[in-house]
Amino acid sequence: MSARFQILVLHGPNLNLLGTREPGVYGSTTLEGINEALTELAGELNVELKILQSNHEGALVDAIQGARGECHGILINPAAYTHTSVAIRDAVAAVALPTVEVHLSNIHAREPFREQSYLAPVAVGQICGFGADSYLLGLRGLVKRLEK
Amino acid sequence: MSARFQILVLHGPNLNLLGTREPGVYGSTTLEGINEALTELAGELNVELKILQSNHEGALVDAIQGARGECHGILINPAAYTHTSVAIRDAVAAVALPTVEVHLSNIHAREPFREQSYLAPVAVGQICGFGADSYLLGLRGLVKRLEK
Amino acid sequence: MSARFQILVLHGPNLNLLGTREPGVYGSTTLEGINEALTELAGELNVELKILQSNHEGALVDAIQGARGECHGILINPAAYTHTSVAIRDAVAAVALPTVEVHLSNIHAREPFREQSYLAPVAVGQICGFGADSYLLGLRGLVKRLEK
Amino acid sequence: MSARFQILVLHGPNLNLLGTREPGVYGSTTLEGINEALTELAGELNVELKILQSNHEGALVDAIQGARGECHGILINPAAYTHTSVAIRDAVAAVALPTVEVHLSNIHAREPFREQSYLAPVAVGQICGFGADSYLLGLRGLVKRLEK
Amino acid sequence: MSARFQILVLHGPNLNLLGTREPGVYGSTTLEGINEALTELAGELNVELKILQSNHEGALVDAIQGARGECHGILINPAAYTHTSVAIRDAVAAVALPTVEVHLSNIHAREPFREQSYLAPVAVGQICGFGADSYLLGLRGLVKRLEK
Amino acid sequence: MSARFQILVLHGPNLNLLGTREPGVYGSTTLEGINEALTELAGELNVELKILQSNHEGALVDAIQGARGECHGILINPAAYTHTSVAIRDAVAAVALPTVEVHLSNIHAREPFREQSYLAPVAVGQICGFGADSYLLGLRGLVKRLEK
Amino acid sequence: MSARFQILVLHGPNLNLLGTREPGVYGSTTLEGINEALTELAGELNVELKILQSNHEGALVDAIQGARGECHGILINPAAYTHTSVAIRDAVAAVALPTVEVHLSNIHAREPFREQSYLAPVAVGQICGFGADSYLLGLRGLVKRLEK
Amino acid sequence: MSARFQILVLHGPNLNLLGTREPGVYGSTTLEGINEALTELAGELNVELKILQSNHEGALVDAIQGARGECHGILINPAAYTHTSVAIRDAVAAVALPTVEVHLSNIHAREPFREQSYLAPVAVGQICGFGADSYLLGLRGLVKRLEK
Amino acid sequence: MSARFQILVLHGPNLNLLGTREPGVYGSTTLEGINEALTELAGELNVELKILQSNHEGALVDAIQGARGECHGILINPAAYTHTSVAIRDAVAAVALPTVEVHLSNIHAREPFREQSYLAPVAVGQICGFGADSYLLGLRGLVKRLEK
Amino acid sequence: MSARFQILVLHGPNLNLLGTREPGVYGSTTLEGINEALTELAGELNVELKILQSNHEGALVDAIQGARGECHGILINPAAYTHTSVAIRDAVAAVALPTVEVHLSNIHAREPFREQSYLAPVAVGQICGFGADSYLLGLRGLVKRLEK
Amino acid sequence: MSARFQILVLHGPNLNLLGTREPGVYGSTTLEGINEALTELAGELNVELKILQSNHEGALVDAIQGARGECHGILINPAAYTHTSVAIRDAVAAVALPTVEVHLSNIHAREPFREQSYLAPVAVGQICGFGADSYLLGLRGLVKRLEK
Amino acid sequence: MSARFQILVLHGPNLNLLGTREPGVYGSTTLEGINEALTELAGELNVELKILQSNHEGALVDAIQGARGECHGILINPAAYTHTSVAIRDAVAAVALPTVEVHLSNIHAREPFREQSYLAPVAVGQICGFGADSYLLGLRGLVKRLEK
Repeated sequence: MSARFQILVLHGPNLNLLGTREPGVYGSTTLEGINEALTELAGELNVELKILQSNHEGALVDAIQGARGECHGILINPAAYTHTSVAIRDAVAAVALPTVEVHLSNIHAREPFREQSYLAPVAVGQICGFGADSYLLGLRGLVKRLEK
Repeated sequence: MSARFQILVLHGPNLNLLGTREPGVYGSTTLEGINEALTELAGELNVELKILQSNHEGALVDAIQGARGECHGILINPAAYTHTSVAIRDAVAAVALPTVEVHLSNIHAREPFREQSYLAPVAVGQICGFGADSYLLGLRGLVKRLEK
Repeated sequence: MSARFQILVLHGPNLNLLGTREPGVYGSTTLEGINEALTELAGELNVELKILQSNHEGALVDAIQGARGECHGILINPAAYTHTSVAIRDAVAAVALPTVEVHLSNIHAREPFREQSYLAPVAVGQICGFGADSYLLGLRGLVKRLEK
Repeated sequence: MSARFQILVLHGPNLNLLGTREPGVYGSTTLEGINEALTELAGELNVELKILQSNHEGALVDAIQGARGECHGILINPAAYTHTSVAIRDAVAAVALPTVEVHLSNIHAREPFREQSYLAPVAVGQICGFGADSYLLGLRGLVKRLEK
Repeated sequence: MSARFQILVLHGPNLNLLGTREPGVYGSTTLEGINEALTELAGELNVELKILQSNHEGALVDAIQGARGECHGILINPAAYTHTSVAIRDAVAAVALPTVEVHLSNIHAREPFREQSYLAPVAVGQICGFGADSYLLGLRGLVKRLEK
Repeated sequence: MSARFQILVLHGPNLNLLGTREPGVYGSTTLEGINEALTELAGELNVELKILQSNHEGALVDAIQGARGECHGILINPAAYTHTSVAIRDAVAAVALPTVEVHLSNIHAREPFREQSYLAPVAVGQICGFGADSYLLGLRGLVKRLEK
Repeated sequence: MSARFQILVLHGPNLNLLGTREPGVYGSTTLEGINEALTELAGELNVELKILQSNHEGALVDAIQGARGECHGILINPAAYTHTSVAIRDAVAAVALPTVEVHLSNIHAREPFREQSYLAPVAVGQICGFGADSYLLGLRGLVKRLEK
Repeated sequence: MSARFQILVLHGPNLNLLGTREPGVYGSTTLEGINEALTELAGELNVELKILQSNHEGALVDAIQGARGECHGILINPAAYTHTSVAIRDAVAAVALPTVEVHLSNIHAREPFREQSYLAPVAVGQICGFGADSYLLGLRGLVKRLEK
Repeated sequence: MSARFQILVLHGPNLNLLGTREPGVYGSTTLEGINEALTELAGELNVELKILQSNHEGALVDAIQGARGECHGILINPAAYTHTSVAIRDAVAAVALPTVEVHLSNIHAREPFREQSYLAPVAVGQICGFGADSYLLGLRGLVKRLEK
Repeated sequence: MSARFQILVLHGPNLNLLGTREPGVYGSTTLEGINEALTELAGELNVELKILQSNHEGALVDAIQGARGECHGILINPAAYTHTSVAIRDAVAAVALPTVEVHLSNIHAREPFREQSYLAPVAVGQICGFGADSYLLGLRGLVKRLEK
Repeated sequence: MSARFQILVLHGPNLNLLGTREPGVYGSTTLEGINEALTELAGELNVELKILQSNHEGALVDAIQGARGECHGILINPAAYTHTSVAIRDAVAAVALPTVEVHLSNIHAREPFREQSYLAPVAVGQICGFGADSYLLGLRGLVKRLEK
Repeated sequence: MSARFQILVLHGPNLNLLGTREPGVYGSTTLEGINEALTELAGELNVELKILQSNHEGALVDAIQGARGECHGILINPAAYTHTSVAIRDAVAAVALPTVEVHLSNIHAREPFREQSYLAPVAVGQICGFGADSYLLGLRGLVKRLEK
């Protein structure tokens, strides 16, 4: 049976270092671990994932643009670009695909500049603070939204 | 088999009007509908819920205090008190129970004063924008956290 | 002849002390005096009033919610909660009844924090500075609005 | 019987366009309609009105100054000059006549710069949001004040 | 010999948890311990205390109002309501009783929002940072004031 | 052949001094020179210009109001009033004629207060930094807009 | 012997009311009294004054422009326009005549908005707080400057 | 006859989606349509264009650097990077080529963060709000500048 | 019996004028009066005081440094330096002696700049508003702290 | 004939370098030159000067305090301490002598931090921008004040 | 003898233009000149350099990540990305290598936005204002740090 | 052989406590240790140092002034006065000697008020975060500058 929805999963800058990077803040799960858990859940939910990590703002914009006509929704952890990228926000607004923003850490309990998200106002919603589970919750939330 | 965790579910002011209140913003699900869905999911996850709605800041503080020794975690939509109540924040910090903050609407796409949460910095995490599903995702996230 | 409109009149915190509280700022009329004058004007305008004073934010929210289906409009002096209560604002927006905000004193000639009103943007209008007459003008304004 | 009080009514810039200007914001009543309604109410209250509209800040200042010794109070809708004119504020303070500030629209539900009034702190009070009725309520409020 | 002064002692939200709540911040003394120490000192100073703790802003306002004619002064730790309650400030200003504000912790060494007190400008003075001794110093200061 | 569009050209305060006023900032072209160049371009574009310069905010408001029913669009350099006049903004919004805002100098490379324009949000667009050519570009842009 | 310098003296809005306007703030000297004292001092200093008062921002701008080629310097009390007029600032910068700004009251001891002067950065200097003597000191200062 | 000037035309992130992206905001013209119109106008003005679109901030910086010695001026719509890129600003300042900044939409009528441009202070000027015509006006303005 | 603790008492700038300086704000007690009262209380508490007043920031820093190894705690009224001296703050942090900050007046009821204290975050606590009694309460609080 | 008034003249930090320090900003007159000119004018006005320059904030405070009972007024150029010293402000307020603040340069045309004066709100008035003449004008203004 | 430490030297955007770019601000040394001087000093200090310049934020992030396990420290001039890149900050924090931030110009004497550095709080230290010598001092500082 | 340059080394308030003061922040080196290391490096670089530490702002200003004609440059750690002293800034600007500002700790990783330096804009450059090595790097940087 073919997947109900195609979903683009985007990991922003430095997330490739997960598991080794500041484990006190981000936990010890690796990006591979997150991707595997996501893929497993995607199977359960009968959706298909296309996964990309990049440290380049432009590459993330390219990927979002490329999702038009290819995917039904986007699950993104913009990491540092959350707070500095209008380009990613504009790309999401332009492709008009339901997009869910997730964060590993609780961005409200860190430096003040991490509380501001350029993306959030054009996203469906935002999930933060659950470590790797933020992604899984975000995928569930996105699929629920797509089902409507 | 007895439930693994007791969880306090708190609904803040005006949430008793859900389904009739500004459906364009909050959707058409009623609070009863949300509570039923939560209870169903709680069954699946083998946890037990204690649910309360109040328009009174003090009553919410009382309830949070009462959860000490009774519950393992708190799922709360503080609604309007998100932005104005230090007392609820202090209560959560005082009882030191894992607490997940949820919002029906995407608070980042509304009035600027709704972006600030006194509670978020002392919560495990925050979920917003998924309508009634914000609660279900929040319950899943909280249980995952309690399992660790 | 039955009254044309039912109107909820709400007095916020500390207004029960009127006449004794800082007469230099608030005048010497008592709350009873205001209520009598309001009732007399209500008779002239053929409307019926339901009057409540409370020092509790939650009680005011409860009363606003209770006006749904019972009243056609709300006349409210939120007093101190003008500047701190998002819950009252949300309640007014939720019940979607025409609401007029009044203040005894000229809030623009006092401390800076008294210039900000959470309620005003969702109210029909705001009247301040006329002492007890602010209520009477507010009632007239509300009835005019209901007649349209 | 001669009028009890002489009252200067001032309409600020662009109010001459009323009824045609952005009716969604300002309603369809014309300035003539407002003046007629004011004159009628003035008759009821046994006061006499002197009415002026100007787009010129200086002309409004001149008119306020001219009210000294001629009028007992001022009813003014400073329109755009509400937010930019210290000169009008100073004129009102200088002539020391009771002055009531009115606005057709709810200035608290519009652009942020419309929330600030240079005039309000030196006025008796402020009424906004009742359309043409703001003037009528303002006249009543001013006369009540003059009676004291 | 009857007491020289009647003093209302008010404990704000979450102070009932003292001793168990974040002892690193608030110390290990319980509220009962504080009340006993206060009562003992009151005996030495020949004053009588009426003590109340509440998590409800409105209940604190009610109590302050009730002190009129009953008490000569108020000793209050508004806790979280220090930073959010204009209603408590207005109540203190309305009853016009000498009021001393105390805090267990040094509010200047914590989150920025804890530095702002709505109450302080209408209080006699403020004492913070001495743990349970803040109350005792506050009682001494209040009695000294009442003796003048 | 009659002109396709009537266009009001407004020059704000101090522009009558052009060519002599701070040539380092504003260039050496006189206002007459600009008007001639505009008239020549108007001929090419087959539109007719009505040109006015005034140092008086009220006179500019009057002229904008007068354009209703007379002109199809407005080309305006509000000069100093760009940053201080809500009245001009309101006049433009009231007459609802397409309006283009131009500036001789690059207002983004000068004092911070020159970056804010009350007019811009209700204008079609803004052109700055091209000296006298700002007007010519603005006329072209306005005519293009009117053709649509 | 002909005067050494021609000096334009400008009085801004509401200064025509001097002596009657808020004497607690502005003193009891009339504008005529100030002009006489200025004229007398001008005689001593062998300079000639051209004096104008206006409530109209545009009229003040016109007068400043008219001083080019006619006067050697400007002595101005912009009154309320100090804080709101970029047009007067630009006029002074445009005519490039030495200009001294004076104020009767100490603008630093009044409302915060009176501390900001658009004119001051392009003036020679500013004198405030000496009542009518501010003008006389300003004239002396201006003449000293012109002598250099 | 060879072209008088070589001009680099840069389109920032997401502009490749033009015509499909939020047509309510950006119009229905495609980027190809804009480039054709620009090329046609370039022919009329006898200048030659080198056109590039990129979603990558670094690529735009590279292109600006590459214009040194190759081009006489730059026409750029930095899109989202307008508000976040100091690197593009520094590149323009470094190559010291006359640069004109254009925007399709009226950036002053959108979110507040779109009003700030890092580039504008080092550009010749800025044009916004004319849709695709912003580019054509910008090209004319740039060529006029180069002719001087 | 020798004193239990040596305590440095520091009086900041202008406190030598106490009793004559603005008695409406600071009361009529002289500094000598305060020192005598402090010395008397010190006797009761069996502690020894070393008292210094200086108008020089550097002298206060020197004295704080000199307390290392000599004193067990510091009682300081930094007066004007409260709001401007990082040097005194750093000195207190450097010597790491328990330090209590006191103020005669209620600094929260005065000019806004008096609400900020550089010292408070590194002090044990702060006492203000009790006139000369602020010192006595501060000494009691400091000794209580030293006893622990 | 003995002098009518004793006046303390205070020069703040770095003014001893006058004439050599940044002559572009402060002119080429030396402090000795200013003192001589002041002394000459003092003779004309029949007042006596006591002159002090210091780089030490505390020394300036000491001198202001010392003027009590010795002098009738103070003429002060606080230089850098204008913007940072609350102690000098408090000293002036404490001695309650008429004080005139002068500045050589136009502080409104320099760095933003130089626009703020702690002293100005408690001074009689402020004079800036006339170079050495600021002192002479200040002395005249102060003497005029003392004569009243 | 093998090098004691491997050090990554990163040059941010536009630094490849050094020597030609705004020499008034950045000096006339080329990037090659800086690299040679660095290499020479590296030889003296017995460390080995790996040098990269890029205009791409993502490429700089990639390079920082690549230094893990390869290098002992990082010497970086983030240029424009200093003020806008959270991604570079996060990369440095993630790899947890001692990092020294250098700037050619004195960033405190330029535009306000250049004073803020996202990187500085996670760097060892910052050196600015010494032109090419900033790099050499930075290398010395980094090596000193590595030696500890 | 005589020294090539005379350099004034200034240590600001509390630096005399180095080694004992908050070693976690400032390290364990004493001021004597730093002075010895500086003197040793001065010998290598063939320059002569004149070293002073003071807790008095005025004494530091005096020392800077005294360097005119005596020294060729200044190496200064203004410590707390970095953030509060305009007088030191003005002194450095007045003597016009090349001045290098150093800090032991990374001021960008501490309290927000430590990020602002009054001195930095008039200094050659700033070095922070290298502990005692900040001074040595600063001396090298200053000498390099003097050699040019």
